[in-house]
Amino acid sequence: MKRNLLVAQSGGPSAAINATLAGVIAAARKSDKIGRVYGAKHGIEGVIKGLLVDLSGFTDYEKLKATPAMALGSCRYKLPPITQPGAEDYVKIRDTMRKYEIGSFLYIGGNDSMDTVGKLSAIFAGEADAPAVVGVPKTIDNDLPFTDHTPGYGSAAKYLAVTIGEIIRDTAIYAVPAVTIVEVMGRNAGWLTLAAALPRFVGGSKPDIIAIPEVPFSEEEFLQKVRDAHKRSPNVLAVVSEGLRDSNGEYVGAHTKSGAVDIFGHSYLSGVGKHLEHLVKQEIGCKVRSIELNLMQRCSAHLASFQDLEEGFAIGKEGVAAALRRESGKMIAVERISNNPYAIRLKTVEVADVANKEQLVPEKWWDLDDPGVQAEICQYILPLIKGEVPQFKNEFGLNDYVIFE
Amino acid sequence: MKRNLLVAQSGGPSAAINATLAGVIAAARKSDKIGRVYGAKHGIEGVIKGLLVDLSGFTDYEKLKATPAMALGSCRYKLPPITQPGAEDYVKIRDTMRKYEIGSFLYIGGNDSMDTVGKLSAIFAGEADAPAVVGVPKTIDNDLPFTDHTPGYGSAAKYLAVTIGEIIRDTAIYAVPAVTIVEVMGRNAGWLTLAAALPRFVGGSKPDIIAIPEVPFSEEEFLQKVRDAHKRSPNVLAVVSEGLRDSNGEYVGAHTKSGAVDIFGHSYLSGVGKHLEHLVKQEIGCKVRSIELNLMQRCSAHLASFQDLEEGFAIGKEGVAAALRRESGKMIAVERISNNPYAIRLKTVEVADVANKEQLVPEKWWDLDDPGVQAEICQYILPLIKGEVPQFKNEFGLNDYVIFE
Repeated sequence: MKRNLLVAQSGGPSAAINATLAGVIAAARKSDKIGRVYGAKHGIEGVIKGLLVDLSGFTDYEKLKATPAMALGSCRYKLPPITQPGAEDYVKIRDTMRKYEIGSFLYIGGNDSMDTVGKLSAIFAGEADAPAVVGVPKTIDNDLPFTDHTPGYGSAAKYLAVTIGEIIRDTAIYAVPAVTIVEVMGRNAGWLTLAAALPRFVGGSKPDIIAIPEVPFSEEEFLQKVRDAHKRSPNVLAVVSEGLRDSNGEYVGAHTKSGAVDIFGHSYLSGVGKHLEHLVKQEIGCKVRSIELNLMQRCSAHLASFQDLEEGFAIGKEGVAAALRRESGKMIAVERISNNPYAIRLKTVEVADVANKEQLVPEKWWDLDDPGVQAEICQYILPLIKGEVPQFKNEFGLNDYVIFE
Repeated sequence: MKRNLLVAQSGGPSAAINATLAGVIAAARKSDKIGRVYGAKHGIEGVIKGLLVDLSGFTDYEKLKATPAMALGSCRYKLPPITQPGAEDYVKIRDTMRKYEIGSFLYIGGNDSMDTVGKLSAIFAGEADAPAVVGVPKTIDNDLPFTDHTPGYGSAAKYLAVTIGEIIRDTAIYAVPAVTIVEVMGRNAGWLTLAAALPRFVGGSKPDIIAIPEVPFSEEEFLQKVRDAHKRSPNVLAVVSEGLRDSNGEYVGAHTKSGAVDIFGHSYLSGVGKHLEHLVKQEIGCKVRSIELNLMQRCSAHLASFQDLEEGFAIGKEGVAAALRRESGKMIAVERISNNPYAIRLKTVEVADVANKEQLVPEKWWDLDDPGVQAEICQYILPLIKGEVPQFKNEFGLNDYVIFE
């Protein structure tokens, strides 16, 4: 008997998460074991509320791949602990699964979303008509363990490498001493900042300073590095992760943040970039600017990596295959077989091993001035950012996207 | 007798200013009236210091066109008043011109740079061996008078339209009430913010709120617009120019800025976006984020407009022709002949009319909710952002640029 497939998207956006959705739809439509293909709006919240869209007739895969963020919408929602299987959320999720005769439920997301996959597969275990629940990874942060990398990282990495390359040109034009500080996403993991450092790692001279959360940060050392860099060039460029911490594990700038208030009495929620901007102004006194790459680093589909989207698509297809094999409670993972030529294979890992855990930049890569480390990082990242993605334009020449309303 | 040509770049970067440089070099190399082609490093400062680069052998025009910012470097330097023709700067500039036998001096820049062109052409008037000094316009701000638009604007406009299109997708994913405020460059002129509004003007629903410096800004009206927009959609998007002013002509947020100090006792130099973020948090209390598009809006060569770079190149060539016609003290300008099909012709205007003046968004376009106004703005901007520019990649797949050291 054919049963139906349900797919949903969760967590923060990336340029690749719709490529994975496209892979899921393509594989599900092709399978003779799957009837209809449904998408839930706004992640697990849409499953709870029964907000489903019928995707069975959708075939515009290439355009969906080139659409940033979540065409189905997203949520940030934590299910009750599995010690409460009778909780209202679980009752409603079961209702939706039965009503729509769902045999496979694919959840595309990051660490938190894998928590949802783990809970649902545990709750459903032993229930004869319950769907197989499979996790399909995505996160620009690249911080999921047991996978070489995650879809979404390659595109964000490409955005960062290209944009820093342009900022290097922009900040190089004046002969007066200046410092530019670029703040990159990453509360705990420095993977994106490594990508922002690529223009230097491939043989350039900038960014001059690179700081990731894994390495304890010292403001004194930072200022010394700025002074040293000024001896070589008037234009100093630093790329720093948003989550820099000092040797006590305290966020850099946390003290500044709590000390500054605006006319409303609110503290300024400025990030580490703004904090370091003020530090340089105070201690060195030259022209200084901080740049927050903000949402653009995760939603810039026009700069998506072809390799990343192809892998995202393949991982979506593999998720459908795993669900049909009834591998409930598993997540699709990427294993790198070879670097030269770059080759991967897909496998499944236990979602319980992945959920709520983070993969950080390994200690062997912490000395970012070491040419050997730089070469290894290049070997890791460069294959992931390769290739351009065709853009879909409307009659006005602007990008055209797929949205499931 | 053949004399030589000198070219320099000045002011703030854009994605098109090197296209104009490429046009100058191409036309100069082709002319049998010009001997060698020199570039001055860092604008007029390089002329004063005699820091010249010989560009006579350069032919890699397409790659130079795809390089952001200034391949020759830039400066922000104001020459002494022309009532001091014997000032040291003028003496040194004359020395450089004589030493290198310069017959044509082309200065690529915006309002301030045209001040330099005006002063030099006035100083040189009547000096038999002095070069013809011609201004070649560029500015992302699009605020030069007596020209339909300026090279650099089309590419920045394209970056803004594409990026806002992506931010719309990114901010649309959650079902909870939220406000996103995007701050766009423009101290006095709203041209770039109009480009950021394009996704709405071509028939979309966002950005919900658009605010330009030309129209007096009221915080109360802004908050009311946010509340009204929240009735239609949980995700409210506002694009605002950095230079918003209230009905007294005071910069919005100026008071907040002066009131807030950090632990160093420095006032926070937060922009209007940050100010409005705090205002919304205070008065409405929902999730709110501000985004500053910062340098990226002027240096994103990977999103440059083909039309813009082609025009930049043509304007550079026309600058050489005007210099050979000895039209000293003139600036090249663009006249739009037709919208459908889009067609322009190049002409020269008196630099004295242009220098230190600004062309603002006309009052007939201030009602940005009027569909007729939106259609006119689209007709104005859309032809300028058309077409993609080929990218040059190095062996690592990263963008490769031209730099004259």
